Amino acid sequence: MPHPEFLPIQWKSTHLELLDQRILPGKKEFLKLTTAEETISAIREMAVRGAPAIAITGVFGLTLGAKLQSGAANPKEIETLLSSVLESRPTAVNLSFAIREAKKLVQGVSDWKEITKIWETYGLKMMEEDLAANKALGANGVSLFSKDQSEFHIITHCNTGALATAGHGTALGVIRSLRDAGKKVVVYADETRPFLQGSRLTAFEMMEEGIECYIITDGMSGWLMNHRKIDAVLVGCDRVAANGDTANKIGTYNLGIVAKEHGVPFYVCATKDSFDLNLKTGVEIPIEMRKESEVTQFDFLKSENGNYLFPEGKTSPVGARALNPSFDVTKAHLIKNFITEFGCFTPEEISLRLKSV
Amino acid sequence: MPHPEFLPIQWKSTHLELLDQRILPGKKEFLKLTTAEETISAIREMAVRGAPAIAITGVFGLTLGAKLQSGAANPKEIETLLSSVLESRPTAVNLSFAIREAKKLVQGVSDWKEITKIWETYGLKMMEEDLAANKALGANGVSLFSKDQSEFHIITHCNTGALATAGHGTALGVIRSLRDAGKKVVVYADETRPFLQGSRLTAFEMMEEGIECYIITDGMSGWLMNHRKIDAVLVGCDRVAANGDTANKIGTYNLGIVAKEHGVPFYVCATKDSFDLNLKTGVEIPIEMRKESEVTQFDFLKSENGNYLFPEGKTSPVGARALNPSFDVTKAHLIKNFITEFGCFTPEEISLRLKSV
Repeated sequence: MPHPEFLPIQWKSTHLELLDQRILPGKKEFLKLTTAEETISAIREMAVRGAPAIAITGVFGLTLGAKLQSGAANPKEIETLLSSVLESRPTAVNLSFAIREAKKLVQGVSDWKEITKIWETYGLKMMEEDLAANKALGANGVSLFSKDQSEFHIITHCNTGALATAGHGTALGVIRSLRDAGKKVVVYADETRPFLQGSRLTAFEMMEEGIECYIITDGMSGWLMNHRKIDAVLVGCDRVAANGDTANKIGTYNLGIVAKEHGVPFYVCATKDSFDLNLKTGVEIPIEMRKESEVTQFDFLKSENGNYLFPEGKTSPVGARALNPSFDVTKAHLIKNFITEFGCFTPEEISLRLKSV
Repeated sequence: MPHPEFLPIQWKSTHLELLDQRILPGKKEFLKLTTAEETISAIREMAVRGAPAIAITGVFGLTLGAKLQSGAANPKEIETLLSSVLESRPTAVNLSFAIREAKKLVQGVSDWKEITKIWETYGLKMMEEDLAANKALGANGVSLFSKDQSEFHIITHCNTGALATAGHGTALGVIRSLRDAGKKVVVYADETRPFLQGSRLTAFEMMEEGIECYIITDGMSGWLMNHRKIDAVLVGCDRVAANGDTANKIGTYNLGIVAKEHGVPFYVCATKDSFDLNLKTGVEIPIEMRKESEVTQFDFLKSENGNYLFPEGKTSPVGARALNPSFDVTKAHLIKNFITEFGCFTPEEISLRLKSV
């Protein structure tokens, strides 16, 4: 279990407390969200990130939206609320599943109070199940590492830890589980530009847990694989297509190619709801393009007083253009195994394995 | 020819004027260097970068060192001066060649005034030759691109332009030459963490020249190659071993692997003095490790008033560790061609081609 301070999403009945990950690691501060709109903004502006955490937050956003209504709910109002939360992050499949499920749960229900109760219960259940799934995923991941080896060197990308989930994490969950199994783990965290989730969040989580961790820039993984024996690359994912193509934070695909070139096993940690068998290949996964200024300046980081950390933070000429896809798609042939709460399997086995869960 | 403001190194007889690239693109400001020590600091702290520019600056650093002496020079004093300049950037082979040559030129000379004159002349000759070499390199590079195609999309890494040389540039020199040959060129500049030479310098040079340019983070090249037809990757180099293994700014190797995976031709632009046939393979190239804080915080960028741009700029937890190799080695098998001032050739042809120049 992560330290209590680490639980990024805390439902308080009257409001949602959400750890503001934009000001980490400078300060641990919780946003107190009381409306659906505030929650949508928090998701859109990346105060919360990570597919499972976004989905859970989204459901509590619905709950808050319903809570502020009273009397009878008409289907159109419900639909508007559902859509507005869904649109806060279009790539994360967990959110779209959760919204679909939330819609089903209130089919035929027309009292806002009742709807509030249903969504609140659903949100709490999601949190509990996510934590249990991550623990199971972690244990399955450990089975891929040699029992006879006492020390493992692992590269990871973005943040896939307690901060991205209800707790424990996916890729960082495997690392935690390895450590809990008595192994020494040395983690190399891609800083993960543009948003620096690796240096800000993964390094933070690893340090709090006492796990040795070195930040590298996203272009250093090849150098590292030449200079140290790397046992595995562990990443999370936002959406997996039926053929195994995997959308994850931008930079994951390059890391996958580099791992393949060096014969380093590349593992994607995914919970069941990351798989979207409606999509044949990764080409069908929608990729969110974000604003150019995240690349050309550092206008997203806030300091402890809530001001922008880099008010002058333009690191490119005035008027410079940039591209900013938030995700890329790692092709299935680069992935050795998926690590899930229901076992480990290759891209070819996805359809078969998903049928039985 | 670059715009006059762009000449980063200007020798003024009494001192050296050096464009301070650390405060670009915010401000164009020249350092006025009057001593060898100031010049060494400027090299070490990356006010100047790019192998040819560093070598030229180094020789003017020697000149300033000699100029401040008077009377007879003893060999030990000369040696101390040569070593101190050499040690300012250990990986750049151009600098070590230049220092060796500078040493040879003053063999048996024992008058500081005479030594000053010799080194000054040598520095000016290096500048002139570098500019001519870059122009020739650019023209040779153009020959690799189809005459029948009117538009080229090119990814580059770090800065290899007028700012890294005496003018025109190497990889950016090829791009300038393509444009001069009437082609439309669209440049995608890796931002090049940690020092952001791509977003700060390459974007700046391209914008000043009116060449379309998009900044991408170092992890986006694979995504880009899947989404746009990329015609080539063009990079510079700091040192090439006899087998073609090439040291260049960290991140180049990853880019080379990604280009190979996509079948995109990967070209290394190199002038003669980048080749070091004394080194059999890239394993023998010394790699400079720089301070961790360049990765964990942004403490190297200065604003217009000379203060650090990001005084609070820690983007990782207090005490976080990082790795910071300044260069990596791209393996020869990833390189389709070297583009030099004496022609284009494959890694296998290096020894043969170097013999004839």
